[in-house]
Amino acid sequence: MPNFESPDPDYESRIRASFSRQMVMPTIGARLSAIRPGEVRIELPFSPTLTQQHGYLHAGIVGAIADSACGYAAYTLMPAGSEVLTVEYKINFLSPARGQTFTAIGKVVKPGRTVTACSGEVWAQTDDERELVAVLQATMICIRR
Amino acid sequence: MPNFESPDPDYESRIRASFSRQMVMPTIGARLSAIRPGEVRIELPFSPTLTQQHGYLHAGIVGAIADSACGYAAYTLMPAGSEVLTVEYKINFLSPARGQTFTAIGKVVKPGRTVTACSGEVWAQTDDERELVAVLQATMICIRR
Amino acid sequence: MPNFESPDPDYESRIRASFSRQMVMPTIGARLSAIRPGEVRIELPFSPTLTQQHGYLHAGIVGAIADSACGYAAYTLMPAGSEVLTVEYKINFLSPARGQTFTAIGKVVKPGRTVTACSGEVWAQTDDERELVAVLQATMICIRR
Amino acid sequence: MPNFESPDPDYESRIRASFSRQMVMPTIGARLSAIRPGEVRIELPFSPTLTQQHGYLHAGIVGAIADSACGYAAYTLMPAGSEVLTVEYKINFLSPARGQTFTAIGKVVKPGRTVTACSGEVWAQTDDERELVAVLQATMICIRR
Repeated sequence: MPNFESPDPDYESRIRASFSRQMVMPTIGARLSAIRPGEVRIELPFSPTLTQQHGYLHAGIVGAIADSACGYAAYTLMPAGSEVLTVEYKINFLSPARGQTFTAIGKVVKPGRTVTACSGEVWAQTDDERELVAVLQATMICIRR
Repeated sequence: MPNFESPDPDYESRIRASFSRQMVMPTIGARLSAIRPGEVRIELPFSPTLTQQHGYLHAGIVGAIADSACGYAAYTLMPAGSEVLTVEYKINFLSPARGQTFTAIGKVVKPGRTVTACSGEVWAQTDDERELVAVLQATMICIRR
Repeated sequence: MPNFESPDPDYESRIRASFSRQMVMPTIGARLSAIRPGEVRIELPFSPTLTQQHGYLHAGIVGAIADSACGYAAYTLMPAGSEVLTVEYKINFLSPARGQTFTAIGKVVKPGRTVTACSGEVWAQTDDERELVAVLQATMICIRR
Repeated sequence: MPNFESPDPDYESRIRASFSRQMVMPTIGARLSAIRPGEVRIELPFSPTLTQQHGYLHAGIVGAIADSACGYAAYTLMPAGSEVLTVEYKINFLSPARGQTFTAIGKVVKPGRTVTACSGEVWAQTDDERELVAVLQATMICIRR
């Protein structure tokens, strides 16, 4: 991955402020665990209230944290005063999402003035083992007011 | 859409039983609203606990109900004793997900012995108006035990 | 599909001119077969020079005509003087692409000032029968000079 | 990427034989440039006969070589006597596809008995510079006869 620089020195507090307005994140128990230019990580502990029919984390919740991680990764490289929205994402599920904690890693692949391409991964952690459970490819858009 | 027939006369109760094991669905407040061969609908009332940073329904939650509607649409055409899993999905967000109620409609495009292609839509309802907020294209797999 | 209107009365000649500059289209033998606001069709006769390893039309060629049909469908609704580019597309292959003629149908799902969402289908025709071989979901961008 | 091993000692000749039956590849001028377990590379020299309306390589052709590279990457890990088909792919275009040579790199992300997830990249080379022009995420299926 290239070494990105943010055009906004306050990108981290801008992202923390935006994340704190995503009410769905405390609802599911997710939190921001790392922010740097072009990369954001979100952590989600397993909860039996978020499962699909076999007791694993629901694919849609896996998608939700991966989408947010990618959106905020793109947002690190956008200017102050802008907003970020998801245009689309595509996610492949590689293994059943079973684990104690899930980490979504969103990375910018190609930033653009309007449109930014991102890639995401979701890893499941169980004791000392981790497994890649999903990969995501997404398009984010910068809204300038 | 072609007129599909289910190989399992009890497909509806099979799907209701599976849905009732998806603990994430009561967590977010979603419920099955229609089931017929090749098509399933899921309804979700808006809740401020499910929002993204602008107060709209979070893209990941939109994806979650669309994914579930497509997975169960595929499952209507699978035999008794099988399981359904999402291989992948791709979702485009067309309008901000604002509304009082959201309806995800999942439809089978092409059923297969192993792999089934589905398409999904998510509509937002506000008073008498409805708006298409997302379209989804998904691949489901049938697991035979 | 909604009834779209083009902001450019000369959209059809604009699209024919752009298509005639896509040198890959005569290379593979494809031609524009219908243009109306929000929808474009491209026809491709089967050729043994375009096949994959089993003698069917190669998935990439199926994608190429579906992508072009969607791009030009989006372009019908863009203003004179603009350009259209594909941001991304996603394609599901439903049946082996065997037939005498293939028709890609691109439709606008949601037009936007910057970004337009499209859906595409590719049909194979053999004698009097036609079969849906692929569905596509795409994002196009309008470049204003 | 993990270190994959092929279950078939003759995987390379099997892939070369299959590729030589893809008539579209000599038609566009593409050739296999590297094969190892879980990874395949395809090279395509630029040709003015493969362009879109601005003179760059057409998005569909970029997709075609990326799809083939991913399909054959998956095929390296499939058993002798099997066939590989593309279930679906999703491609993001990052930069205009201009260059003298294009290299598609397909890699297996997660192999499976039935379904294999792959990721692809397409790089454009101009003199001593190379640029990432597209990334792809794909699902391949193994057909056992």
